[in-house]
Amino acid sequence: MPRFFCDDINGDHISITGTDARHIGRSLRMRLGDEITVCSQGIEYRSRILTISDEEVSCEVLGKAPSENEANISLTLFQALPKGDKLEFIIQKAAELGVKRVCPVLTSRCVSRPDKKGFDKKLERLRRIALEACKQSGRAQLVEITPLLSFEECINEMKTMEKELMCYEKGGISMSEAGLSAGQSIGLLIGSEGGFDDAEAELAQSSGMTLIGLGKRILRCETAPIAAASIIMHLTGNM
Amino acid sequence: MPRFFCDDINGDHISITGTDARHIGRSLRMRLGDEITVCSQGIEYRSRILTISDEEVSCEVLGKAPSENEANISLTLFQALPKGDKLEFIIQKAAELGVKRVCPVLTSRCVSRPDKKGFDKKLERLRRIALEACKQSGRAQLVEITPLLSFEECINEMKTMEKELMCYEKGGISMSEAGLSAGQSIGLLIGSEGGFDDAEAELAQSSGMTLIGLGKRILRCETAPIAAASIIMHLTGNM
Repeated sequence: MPRFFCDDINGDHISITGTDARHIGRSLRMRLGDEITVCSQGIEYRSRILTISDEEVSCEVLGKAPSENEANISLTLFQALPKGDKLEFIIQKAAELGVKRVCPVLTSRCVSRPDKKGFDKKLERLRRIALEACKQSGRAQLVEITPLLSFEECINEMKTMEKELMCYEKGGISMSEAGLSAGQSIGLLIGSEGGFDDAEAELAQSSGMTLIGLGKRILRCETAPIAAASIIMHLTGNM
Repeated sequence: MPRFFCDDINGDHISITGTDARHIGRSLRMRLGDEITVCSQGIEYRSRILTISDEEVSCEVLGKAPSENEANISLTLFQALPKGDKLEFIIQKAAELGVKRVCPVLTSRCVSRPDKKGFDKKLERLRRIALEACKQSGRAQLVEITPLLSFEECINEMKTMEKELMCYEKGGISMSEAGLSAGQSIGLLIGSEGGFDDAEAELAQSSGMTLIGLGKRILRCETAPIAAASIIMHLTGNM
């Protein structure tokens, strides 16, 4: 069944607007009475189409249930900004793997160094990629993509979480020793191409982060988040 | 220290030829007496350069030791042929993650359907990608890329391994229930975009394969091998 994300849900009534409305009527050629799945905040609404126009598709809710596709943890990926379009790739994979939120972070070894305003221009595109990946992988909750964080903001944000993990190229404990379990909010920090400098690693550790090693081989900065998120999802029973 | 793969090792003498020889002399501007690491079959040879020409760099071995970067399992990825250049991407990531061998497989739902001869033309490029990824990730053993296998050949090849795992989109047991441990030879079969058809899944299971589920979300065919290999490497103490 076609799957859409929409937060405009009022009791038993759902209003889908924008490109999705056009998509339902034109590309998918759906008709009055057809059923679609509308997802919002991890809930799946089985819905029947009542009216269709290019501007709005209105639906009535036939039933709703928490999605079984969402992970039982709240995993936030703090990703140091990589070069080129690698962040787009990472966001797509993070969505498939069940990550809840991706926070791009500017660290000292990032080669790409936009200011926050410059980065904001990319957010729309990144969020569209997250949306498409969420639809395709059967998510019921949109992956949130935040504006660019400084390293200090990243540390403060991670402090609000139950588990603070930093994958460090100079090594650390195994993910299985980090005490992960279902229900936790977990922050996962991954470096850019050059990894982290010593000062950042010290600051992270003194701020309460646990340094994690991902084995002896050197992983590219776009491979590390996929590997780490996969292992976390596995250890918490989600994969 | 620069890292090269070479199997032409005679006692204490190593002869590096081809593009690597030119690379050492021209791009890296190395000199007589400089040290390099030569890797062959999982062994690292600390070596000193004796002569340099565009055709050959000869070295003497100063010391050798099994690499600490190779995984303690022998993991072969049997990958159903994906569309476009995704196989190149999968091979690069497999090399980083410590996979020993990648065997492309033609399954019923592969969209790209070259014959074996047609696929052989791509092997050189795929092997070059594997070589570069091995160098960059610090491997000491080259990832082997085999010619295209039929599904039946894949099944027979997997039967020679201690563990035969097939990731199935309709679900299976968790990787942690598959009894994986250090020292094993493990075959991992991953589908193409459309997954496997029912007949293939039945044949695989009746041939002794264990069906593995990778969670509720739908992973793209290039994400599944990375996630599965990461979890296998984690469960066997390699990541």
